[in-house]
Amino acid sequence: MKEILDRIENKNFKSLQKYLIEQQPADIAEYMKELSDKNSLLVFRLLPKDLATEVFSFMDVYYQTRFSELIKIDELREIVDDLYFDDKIAFLEELPANLVKKILQNTHEQERRLINQFLNYPEFSAGSLMTIEFVDLKKQMTVATAIKHIRETGYDKETIYTCYVIDKFRKLEGVISLRDILVADEDEKISELMETEFISIHTKEDQEEVAEIFKKYDFLALPVVDSENRLVGIITVDDIVDVIEEENTEDFHKMAALQPTEEEYLDSSILSLARKRIPWLLILMISATFTGAIMDGYEALLQQIVALMVFVPMLMGTGGNAGSQSSTLVVRGMALGEITPSDIFKVVWKEIRVSLIVGSTLALLNFLRIYYIEKYPFNISLTVSLTLIITVILAKVIGSTLPIGAKALKMDPAVMASPLITTILDALVLITYFTVAGSILHL
Amino acid sequence: MKEILDRIENKNFKSLQKYLIEQQPADIAEYMKELSDKNSLLVFRLLPKDLATEVFSFMDVYYQTRFSELIKIDELREIVDDLYFDDKIAFLEELPANLVKKILQNTHEQERRLINQFLNYPEFSAGSLMTIEFVDLKKQMTVATAIKHIRETGYDKETIYTCYVIDKFRKLEGVISLRDILVADEDEKISELMETEFISIHTKEDQEEVAEIFKKYDFLALPVVDSENRLVGIITVDDIVDVIEEENTEDFHKMAALQPTEEEYLDSSILSLARKRIPWLLILMISATFTGAIMDGYEALLQQIVALMVFVPMLMGTGGNAGSQSSTLVVRGMALGEITPSDIFKVVWKEIRVSLIVGSTLALLNFLRIYYIEKYPFNISLTVSLTLIITVILAKVIGSTLPIGAKALKMDPAVMASPLITTILDALVLITYFTVAGSILHL
Repeated sequence: MKEILDRIENKNFKSLQKYLIEQQPADIAEYMKELSDKNSLLVFRLLPKDLATEVFSFMDVYYQTRFSELIKIDELREIVDDLYFDDKIAFLEELPANLVKKILQNTHEQERRLINQFLNYPEFSAGSLMTIEFVDLKKQMTVATAIKHIRETGYDKETIYTCYVIDKFRKLEGVISLRDILVADEDEKISELMETEFISIHTKEDQEEVAEIFKKYDFLALPVVDSENRLVGIITVDDIVDVIEEENTEDFHKMAALQPTEEEYLDSSILSLARKRIPWLLILMISATFTGAIMDGYEALLQQIVALMVFVPMLMGTGGNAGSQSSTLVVRGMALGEITPSDIFKVVWKEIRVSLIVGSTLALLNFLRIYYIEKYPFNISLTVSLTLIITVILAKVIGSTLPIGAKALKMDPAVMASPLITTILDALVLITYFTVAGSILHL
Repeated sequence: MKEILDRIENKNFKSLQKYLIEQQPADIAEYMKELSDKNSLLVFRLLPKDLATEVFSFMDVYYQTRFSELIKIDELREIVDDLYFDDKIAFLEELPANLVKKILQNTHEQERRLINQFLNYPEFSAGSLMTIEFVDLKKQMTVATAIKHIRETGYDKETIYTCYVIDKFRKLEGVISLRDILVADEDEKISELMETEFISIHTKEDQEEVAEIFKKYDFLALPVVDSENRLVGIITVDDIVDVIEEENTEDFHKMAALQPTEEEYLDSSILSLARKRIPWLLILMISATFTGAIMDGYEALLQQIVALMVFVPMLMGTGGNAGSQSSTLVVRGMALGEITPSDIFKVVWKEIRVSLIVGSTLALLNFLRIYYIEKYPFNISLTVSLTLIITVILAKVIGSTLPIGAKALKMDPAVMASPLITTILDALVLITYFTVAGSILHL
């Protein structure tokens, strides 16, 4: 960063340009985001056209849109023309329709139609991730002609390492890796080498589905087909890495009572941050008042032994934590495809046994502490410890079943995580506590 | 699955073999895991050698070790010999030393030394992820000779799509993609085409570091060098996808008071699950008793107005949820490299403003509800609502600063997430509550 600022400082643009050319596009994009508008524009204009386009494609969409307001529409048009098709779509998706129109006004009719078709794929669908720059081969080609074809057309393809064999109706017939082509004999036929048992995905599939496939099969690219099984595009692994992180971030947010957002934290406005947080807090706050109501109901009992109150936070806390342990394990397990709704009984049975061990360990230690060290009466110590065991069991069973239930109902399991479960448990823990207390203390 | 079981049922092995050959290796590995030991062994032995090795490399390490006990040591040895080097290391790492010895006893002295060197790289380091099967080129090669070299040696390389240019001391001089080679003229020199401003990583680097680089630069492979900058191996993107998920799982677990584990949930024993959960629950349970102690201190005040108790769960709950919202946003933001410790003041300032909006919204709604609807006395309604605002502010400031502080102290921010923060907040919320109550209700 300093190297850049100094050179701008001393108007040393030649050496700045030289320096920039040696940097990674991703780094330049990052520097620009930190520079003032004026300077980032200066840096951008010093870049050779190819590099400039690459740098642009490494900016996150929010900075892309911000930056595109700084440059002339013709400049912007030039960049957009040179972007890979998937980057082009990702960028245009974020722009107001009228600007998109301006940018595409000189674009060739046919490509414009294609772009509009792609812009219509639902967000987060396979269609919205794919690119059209792939190498297509014909069955009857020999290895030699295939290699020649790749060498001639490969330059502006997003990837040339997986090639797709299509018939004259663009139906996908086979997939073949560049490696298999290269290591084969010059005169072998593609039809003999290509993999006909390939995996493809439909344009409408959810991106999470796509990510699953990449994770499972270790592909570099995946062909995307339409309902007539015609090859419309491919998805490359580099985009999937981003999707995986997006999906994880979404889960992290949902599991912390946040409405998910794609905005980066530091880029988001105070208001939008607040808007993402209030709804869940409100729901949880209101449901938490049921807990209050329960206490209200036991006010008489409480008045007799205020000492009982002392343990409520500990019991609720333990319940919440034990519950979120189980829900997190299950939510994550399902996200990684290790757990499916059909495993519910296996899971519950596991959780019951685990909670017996965990619960009794905690209860024992807790009893020793409050009875022997803190010298509480025996029956109170007993009440608290018994409640603790029941709490842990309830917490783990509910914590593990709710997410699975959600999944079975086609809801997102992540929503059934910590905060919600904690709130549910708070109420149950109190009821248990007061019931146990009632019977043991004969109130 | 059914297709397989039926064919085993009817001893229809020819057609089973035919069916298996058409499946994806990753799928076969999954089927085998579900089959009985006897049947999975049967399936495995029906596979052609190459496919069998591939299937084996798609098994998770836990099933690999389980399965390797089913087959003869010679069979196992054959498979291990054919595994890619990184898969070989990943597998051998999990085995007891004596078994490793047995497997390697016929291995060539030189390779055995290499394997032992790799087994000594710390777990989760770049060294433990890399493979040695890469294409190395020489500067003075022409495109034609390079292509010839790749075609001859490419077959058993893990990737041929990024090639590495090394000098006679194996020092890494440049990196070049197969695409750049293919689209260039036959007689161009590699030295003119190769990228000399490349990014490499040291064997000792943490895998999280490695993942960051792949995410940022969209690489397919990354060269790994030793302290003398000699090329020792490469890391390919398919392994990084797994690392990313591992790292995310680790964070999910830490943020739910679980000690992270690589075991799959359904594979882990009751005891090991319990062991992962008890420590944190214990710590949190004990610290929660401070909250109890605080209540103890205010017993007098509580006895006077038990009504106050009714709102404790709601206040604590809101504090915990508001806190985990902020901590999760920050932890995630740091994991994605969007937030760095140097942003701490930006973050705190953001959180203060957000918490003012969120806090007062909640407080207002809460006041309306308990004063007008539930008809609590004015000063109690005021006490609760005021506490609510302060609670949210405390929650968001602490929730956002603790993870950043942890990171600054080179600790894992994820540990500073929900459960711990909730416990800290519980105490603070109570103190605030009773202090506010004391002054407003003049107790």
